[in-house]
Order: sequence, then C-alpha cells, then structure tokens
Amino acid sequence: MNSKTQLLKGFRDFLPEQMRVRNYVLSVMKEVFESFGFEPLETPSLEYKQTLLGKYGQETDRLVYTFKDKGNRDVGLIYDLTVPVSRVLASYRNRIKLPFKRYQVQKVWREDRPQKGRYREFTQCDFDIFGVISPLADAEIIAIIFEVLRRLKLEKFVIRINSRQVLFTILEKLGIKEVKQQQAILQSIDKLDKKSVETVREELIQKGFTDGLVESVFKELKRAVPDQNLQLMLELVESFGVPKEFFRFDPTLARGLAYYTGIIFETIMKEPKIGSVTGGGRYDKLISQLGGPDIPATGTTIGLDRICDVISELKLFKERTKTTTQVLVTVFNESLINESLKNFRLLKEKCLNVEIYLDLGSSLKKQLKYADKKGIPFAIILGPKEMKDKMVIIKIMKTGEQIKVKDRELLKILKEKIKQWPVKN
Amino acid sequence: MNSKTQLLKGFRDFLPEQMRVRNYVLSVMKEVFESFGFEPLETPSLEYKQTLLGKYGQETDRLVYTFKDKGNRDVGLIYDLTVPVSRVLASYRNRIKLPFKRYQVQKVWREDRPQKGRYREFTQCDFDIFGVISPLADAEIIAIIFEVLRRLKLEKFVIRINSRQVLFTILEKLGIKEVKQQQAILQSIDKLDKKSVETVREELIQKGFTDGLVESVFKELKRAVPDQNLQLMLELVESFGVPKEFFRFDPTLARGLAYYTGIIFETIMKEPKIGSVTGGGRYDKLISQLGGPDIPATGTTIGLDRICDVISELKLFKERTKTTTQVLVTVFNESLINESLKNFRLLKEKCLNVEIYLDLGSSLKKQLKYADKKGIPFAIILGPKEMKDKMVIIKIMKTGEQIKVKDRELLKILKEKIKQWPVKN
Repeated sequence: MNSKTQLLKGFRDFLPEQMRVRNYVLSVMKEVFESFGFEPLETPSLEYKQTLLGKYGQETDRLVYTFKDKGNRDVGLIYDLTVPVSRVLASYRNRIKLPFKRYQVQKVWREDRPQKGRYREFTQCDFDIFGVISPLADAEIIAIIFEVLRRLKLEKFVIRINSRQVLFTILEKLGIKEVKQQQAILQSIDKLDKKSVETVREELIQKGFTDGLVESVFKELKRAVPDQNLQLMLELVESFGVPKEFFRFDPTLARGLAYYTGIIFETIMKEPKIGSVTGGGRYDKLISQLGGPDIPATGTTIGLDRICDVISELKLFKERTKTTTQVLVTVFNESLINESLKNFRLLKEKCLNVEIYLDLGSSLKKQLKYADKKGIPFAIILGPKEMKDKMVIIKIMKTGEQIKVKDRELLKILKEKIKQWPVKN
Repeated sequence: MNSKTQLLKGFRDFLPEQMRVRNYVLSVMKEVFESFGFEPLETPSLEYKQTLLGKYGQETDRLVYTFKDKGNRDVGLIYDLTVPVSRVLASYRNRIKLPFKRYQVQKVWREDRPQKGRYREFTQCDFDIFGVISPLADAEIIAIIFEVLRRLKLEKFVIRINSRQVLFTILEKLGIKEVKQQQAILQSIDKLDKKSVETVREELIQKGFTDGLVESVFKELKRAVPDQNLQLMLELVESFGVPKEFFRFDPTLARGLAYYTGIIFETIMKEPKIGSVTGGGRYDKLISQLGGPDIPATGTTIGLDRICDVISELKLFKERTKTTTQVLVTVFNESLINESLKNFRLLKEKCLNVEIYLDLGSSLKKQLKYADKKGIPFAIILGPKEMKDKMVIIKIMKTGEQIKVKDRELLKILKEKIKQWPVKN
C-alpha cells in the first residue's frame, strides 16, 4: 500500500457492508433508549487537557491524546463520554432538570497499544441516569441492556452484577483500609472471571500481600452475599422483566475504573466467547470532582464494535447488507435518457429505492452487471422497440427472467414482484 | 463558569432539544441518500499528516489540526471528508466497484478563527459519485439536494450552477493562463454574489490586475452562456423533476477550493438569508493526486448546522423537541413499586415510549412536576386505594384532568387518549 494511502495503526475504515450492520445496531439502541425516556446529547471531541486528565489515575491519563493547538492551548481528544457529560452537568445547572437520563453516541480516542479488538478510535454508546440514588435506576440500566440485546436477537449472554460496597466490606473486615491497597486487590480479583485462581493468587502475592490474607479474601468472596441495597436492586431487575438466567450476582466482579462507588455490572457474551460487551455502574462522586453539584449517577457503555462482531458472526442481521437499492433503471442510449428518467421518477415518487445508471454510453450488459454485482434485485430496460410499443421490460436479476409489461402498468406489476420476492442477499 | 467546565472556543455542546432537530435532519438526509442508492462510509478522524496536507493550498493547510502522537508520528484531524474518501478509493481498488456512490456523515475540524456560524468542529454531510464522467451524475447530485430540502419543507432557496470550464474559457480568452492568476481572479469574482461590483473591482485591482482587464472580465461574465456539457446537465436536472425556479446558471459562481475541475454548484437560502447551505462540484483529478486511479468524481457537502438553524427559525420541525416520552408511570410509594413496574411493562411491551419515575420516595407532586417540566403528556397514578379497587388513574398533564379506569382497561383507554391527543409541544 502506498504510504500516502496508509491508515494509522488502531484506526479503521468502515466500508458500506460493515456500516449497514453498525447503523442497524445503532438504530436499535437509540430506539430502546428513547422508549425509556433517554435524551440525546453530543459534546465536543476536543476539550481542555485539564478537563480530561486526573480523573482516572495516571495509567489512564497516559492514554489520552493531548497536544498544543496553534493558539498554544493544551487540548486533548476525549477518552470517554463520562467526563464530557459531567462537564455538561456542571455547566448547565439551570437548563438541565434532574433526574436527567441521557444517551450519547460518539467517537473516543485512546493512545493504547493497538491489538485485536482494541482500537485507538472507537465509537462509545453510553446511557446514564443522573440525580437518582435509588437502585431502581441501576435496575433500569440493566433492563435497557437486556432490551437492547434481546431486540438484536442475542441470546447467549449474562449480566454480572456486584457492588463495590460488598467488596469494600470484605476488605475492611480483613484490615485493608488504604485506598491504594484496596485498588490493587480489586484489580486482581477482577481477573478471576478470565484467569485461574492460582494465577490471581500469584499476582496478589507478587503485589506483596501475604498468603494468609489472599486466602482469606478468596474465602470471603466465596461466601459473600448481596447487601440490602444490591438485594433490592436484583429484585427490581426481575420486576423489570429481565429473566433470571440473564443476570447474576457475582462478587468477583470489581471493574477497573477508580470512580465507581456502588453497584457495578458488565455483560459477558457466552457465544461467541468475546468477553464483555457492556460495562458500567454507579459513580456518585465524579460530577462533584469536576466542580459540579453533588449528583448521583449510574449508567453503562455498550461496546458497539464487539456487538457488531457478534451480530455478523451469528448472522443476526437479516437485511441485505450489499445494497438497499430495489431497482436499477438502465439507460439504453442517450436519446432515451429522458424516458428512462421518467420511469425513475415514477418509481421514486412511490418511495422505492431506485437508481438510474449514471455512466451514459455504457452497454446494457455493463449496466446489468452493475446491478448484479451490487445485489440490486430488479432492473428496468427500455429500448427503442419497447418505447415504440409503449412497453417496458422488468428483469429479475437472480433468475434472469424478463417480463415485458405495458409502461403504464410498470409500477403496479413491479410492486407486486417486489412483494413476492422477499429481497435478501 | 469554572475553568474546569469551560468549552474550547469554536466547539459546542448539543443539548437534547437541539439534538432532536439534528437527528431529524440527519435521518431525512440518510433516507434520501439511500433511496438514490448511496451507500454509507465511515473513515478515521485522525490520519497521517501527509495524507491531509498539500491538497488545497497553503492557506487551507494552516487550518488543519496537526500534532505529533506519542509514537512521534505526524498526524492530523481530518479537515473534510473528500480527502479521506479519496484515500479509501485508492486503498480498496478491488473491493469497491465503480460507479461508487457514497454518503458520509462525520465530524471535521478546522483551526479557523471562530465566529458566528463558523466553528472549529462541525459535522459534514457529504455525498459523492465516483467513476462517472457523464453530467447525469452532476444532475443527480442536484436532484438529491432538491429532494432533501423539499422533504425538510424548505421552500426559499436556489441552487446556483456553473462550470469551471466556462470561467477558464473566459480567462484564457483574455490571456490569463497562469494557474495562480486564474485562482486569484476566481476567488474575487466568487464574491460577486455577496459584495458589490465596486468592491470586487477594487479587490482585483489591488491584486495587481489592470482596470481594462477587470472590465473585460465583468463584460465576459455578463454575456457568458453554459457550454454544451453544462447545458445538457441543466436539462437533465429538469428531467430529474427539479422545478426551474429552484436552480439557475450563474457564471459568477467560482467556488474557492482549488480541486474543482468542471461543473460547480451551491445552494443559497433566500429566507432566512444565511448564505449557502450546500456547496460542491466535480473534482476529476483529486483521487489520482492521492496516488489512486484516475477516477472522475462529483458531489457535494450539506451544511448540517445551517440547515438546522433554518429548520429551527422557520419552526419546520413539528415534532415535540422537549421529549419523545408519551407516558410517565409514577410510583406512589415503595411498597407499590412492583405494581407500578407491571403497568410500565404493560405499556412498554405495546411499544409506547414510557418512563417510570426512578427517584423512589419522591412525592407524587414532585413526580408530576417532572412530567410537566419534561413535557410528558400523560401520567399514570396508582395509589393504595386504586390498587384495592383494581383501578388506575390516567392524568392528562395539559388539562390536569384525571380519569379513573379499570386496570385491565388501562392500555386500551390510554392508547385512545394518545390518538385523540396529538402530542405536540
């Protein structure tokens, strides 16, 4: 590939076939979000560096794209959508009424090492509830995750649910009260879902914790039960209509980000096994950290990329991905262009997705090949002879069958054909 | 405003009411694009600096956000969507079949001086046809612009159409053959639409052109007529069904960008007078400049921001912008939460947009105030008394009227009410 046409590592082009799957998934999400009363929000991709840094710890700060603009301002590309929405809540206290439920679908950037499934630019789909302490809000987030995945016809997944309180209670009982130490342990036990107990034990011991303590942590995790708040939340999830097999209390779920303060959750795909497709929880302190009011918050992010991968792998997107065009109107020769445009307009006015072949002077064979390659199911042919007889030909691309019809009956007959011929790839 | 919550100049937040208008305009555009057989494409926001620079001249290069990433690569934020699509066409020669018609809706960045209506970050909506020399392609672009604006119910606009060939013929006839000089004159005469002949004359003389030459240019422009290719294109625009009052040949249209090679066009709003809302043309050389094949191209960009401004000013978006929620299910007290959730699920399963009030323990008054502020037209109230009587109350927020209905009739009656009560702001 020419250096002038090279993509940056960790960045991607989405060609039409991929875009159609993405647009389908996004439209389902937005429909569900709005059906629950969530409102759309969009914020800038660039913010002052100081707005972005110091929110998640040094390790994460390193991943934020920062630079000086030509006005010598320190700026950065957004790392996620949580910091921007926090800024919005702090900025528009009078215009935004609480409770505020918003969804936000935007690109974010992370200067991470690119690897399979990890990109430097990706689209985040977040939805959050601001201003509600009650676990009813956390339960609604779970209900929406379930509804989105159900509508996308995904079946093999489970939503793991825990609470930071459950974990902190265990750690404090065992005498671990320093925040740094707590975080170190949480980070390791979060891996129990993917790695063996042995590996996690070794990691903790390498971090300097004693054998005895690690053993106690494991023992406590095994017999942990939801606290009262989490118990109520789990019951509410069921009342929202989420079947029991799709969610479970899991005390080993810790979630990496430092800002979570209460209930946390993530969705694991069981088939195909690609890990988590959503992750979120309650973060009641972040908004005030940004200089805003003390607003409780809970919400989640949905991993668009991974969900699109699953949809493609399981072939759950049944529509045609090759094209949405239903009919190609061919142009026999330049002197028949106006007659062909008449047919084009006739079909278009009836809300059909129609193309007219644009490259004047192309052979009919070339035009039909275009329809074939693009997966357009019907072609209209109008030659001088048909013109004279006031007829027009409908060609069914898949079978090659050609039907000659009266020109004034074209629309009626074509519509019937489209109905009879469910258009799939 | 706190410095931590400050927006960068030239960048904007879009709150829900604005987002709903934007989403409406975008959905109309996408529908029209797809109905003409255009396909969606998305490319990265960051590209190698060398991919972005040197395409439009130095003045434009200065406006590209460029920086070094942590891997010491020279990168930049995309300035428009034309350069990225050119890179795509060069990169995927085997996967993309010509003619290729694509639309692309993405944010772009320009380090320009921010002023009213000019932002450093804005969303571009481009659609282009690649691989077609025939003016039928240019005519289709005009037809799509017209169809988008018509569906958005805009009426007071005109599409100005010209050809660079018409302008070059004039300039060459007058002996101006150097590209730099040609560009200098084109840049000035392009202003004839907004500024007086006097002002433009002075500008040209300041640029070093003689009085006599400037006079000759003006004279030639006055008597210019479309060349054969443009004449055919204008006829095809009419054959596409665009009424004559919505487009016109305008020899003073020059368009700034250096890469246009043939037919050029822009749409001027006449009411409100906010200038151009689309701009585009034919650029047959750009793809090969990028190291790709020699592909002819024509297309346009639609200014989303300006169109949204017009839609808002003329109040052409008739839907409710405050919320899309139809019903708020209140929660009388915590012991009735499961019964309230039952009603919520009942309505949700019938595809209504429903919210349940999430902040448990709030007074009914507070909950109804929320519905009122958010513009939700109906509220459902279920207290202990109604519960006992197997009844439920529908409150019509606008009138305050309360209707007590049997709980098993809730869905039926509410649906009737929603139908009778066309929900507008």
